[in-house]
Amino acid sequence: MEGANGNGRWVLVCHGGAGRLRREANGGELEEMRAALRRALSDGAEILRAGGQALDAVQRAVRVMEDCPLLNAGRGSVLNEDGFVELDAALMNGADRAAGAVAAVRTVCNPVDLAREVMRSSPHVLLVGDGAERFAAERGVALMSPDYFITPQRRRELARRRQGAVPEDGSSKGTVGAVALDRSGNLAAATSTGGMTGKRVGRVGDTPLVGAGTYAENGVCAVSATGDGEYFIRATAAAAVASRLRYGGEELSSAARAVIDEIAGMGGEGGLIAVDAAGNLAMPFSAEAMLRGCAGQDRPPEVWL
Amino acid sequence: MEGANGNGRWVLVCHGGAGRLRREANGGELEEMRAALRRALSDGAEILRAGGQALDAVQRAVRVMEDCPLLNAGRGSVLNEDGFVELDAALMNGADRAAGAVAAVRTVCNPVDLAREVMRSSPHVLLVGDGAERFAAERGVALMSPDYFITPQRRRELARRRQGAVPEDGSSKGTVGAVALDRSGNLAAATSTGGMTGKRVGRVGDTPLVGAGTYAENGVCAVSATGDGEYFIRATAAAAVASRLRYGGEELSSAARAVIDEIAGMGGEGGLIAVDAAGNLAMPFSAEAMLRGCAGQDRPPEVWL
Repeated sequence: MEGANGNGRWVLVCHGGAGRLRREANGGELEEMRAALRRALSDGAEILRAGGQALDAVQRAVRVMEDCPLLNAGRGSVLNEDGFVELDAALMNGADRAAGAVAAVRTVCNPVDLAREVMRSSPHVLLVGDGAERFAAERGVALMSPDYFITPQRRRELARRRQGAVPEDGSSKGTVGAVALDRSGNLAAATSTGGMTGKRVGRVGDTPLVGAGTYAENGVCAVSATGDGEYFIRATAAAAVASRLRYGGEELSSAARAVIDEIAGMGGEGGLIAVDAAGNLAMPFSAEAMLRGCAGQDRPPEVWL
Repeated sequence: MEGANGNGRWVLVCHGGAGRLRREANGGELEEMRAALRRALSDGAEILRAGGQALDAVQRAVRVMEDCPLLNAGRGSVLNEDGFVELDAALMNGADRAAGAVAAVRTVCNPVDLAREVMRSSPHVLLVGDGAERFAAERGVALMSPDYFITPQRRRELARRRQGAVPEDGSSKGTVGAVALDRSGNLAAATSTGGMTGKRVGRVGDTPLVGAGTYAENGVCAVSATGDGEYFIRATAAAAVASRLRYGGEELSSAARAVIDEIAGMGGEGGLIAVDAAGNLAMPFSAEAMLRGCAGQDRPPEVWL
């Protein structure tokens, strides 16, 4: 199958967040997170290898990571100031720049699946709060009780945060995301998060915002970001990577690095993963560490921290 | 006062939405809308003439337009599927790219004032729904009962919409916005809206999203958009105008026009207002009409439809 990328080449990149992962997780936990990324890469790769769509692959990979209770998305997300989760997710299809996103949902088992449903079955791009959950119920997207999402570890983190022992930039960066190029040359991106420990009720970060935490445009690139969300919003991070390629003629690696550096200059840290139309990858980060991995037709799934 | 724009020149541009204004409003209503824009320009211009900040001027201008019950922002906003308003607003300061935004709020008298408070008094950029209203109450931002916002005209529109008589792209485009360049060379943008008639509960459009409906960056440009919000989100409209200048070296008028044309090509209509660092203006639109106006040190407030 020859694609628009000229060689039918496919690539999948995933991240499990950037931050002080080494300090905040023990060896067993880190291994469990790595294993979730390997599963995400392997499940997504299966779709791409068979000639499936980039959009399906990134949704599948993100769903796998949402289900890992140690990553900050879906079950096991960080808790807000009131002690419950509020989840954000988005995905975007580079083929037609269709996008779907949800924010501040409290009972949606896999927010990335609801984002896909918003894209597919509503005229809207972004639904938030109660309205998003009502839509989920109408469309038969799985809902769980708020308690399902809460793990003992996240309760302890919130307690430490309330005592001032966890810095604002603490374990808030385990956002998960995926970008892919499929064999037909289509790009797609998806991102999902629980946001920041102790965040205000109703706070929405960069993850579900097209052009901030998530962006895909065929012929240009697909981007998924993680880090200090407010800075990524103000820098329109994901769109900035694409614009540096599209309008500035830059190469992906320098464009991605420049955006992370610009955000660092503003005072924000984090990272992003990106793939361009030719299958080039970039995974720059300014945080202490970023959990990341990739798979492609010539390379088996591999994960780094 | 000599500014970064080299000549201490100031400019303020406002819009009151794009759409089928001439078909949907009678002569008296159109005159009332024009008068609201003239007041917005004149109140904002007073700040800029005195050497005040672009951010204060756009906030002031948008607040005046929010208070006009015929424009689709604040009181008199369009009603959602359940028959109440849900309001979105954002503002951005080009000087440091600080931003504040709120979405899906139901009781906030002037959403642009709450967006400013998010920027000033929280570590966050975007707050939505109940959480945003709780923050408003804590900060003493004026709240009103949901009934305050509902006008007989909007009830009639929703009834017609439910009967299928008002098209989806009906009176949904009276979003208001302002962009300014102050005498010190700072750029700012603000936008406020009630969204689309009959929209789903929880639907958020481009208005409160940095880089979609609202964007400002000193040395580049300030942008406020109006129209089919979902298309403006997918095209990262406001950021695209800025990126065409910043990375592509385009001039403001061609950049602004190109973005509106690209969105039209995707199937979306609307318009935007923009001002660049030299004080050049652009006000392109693809809809039937756009209510717009401007004021500057060499020109008294003027309004066009």
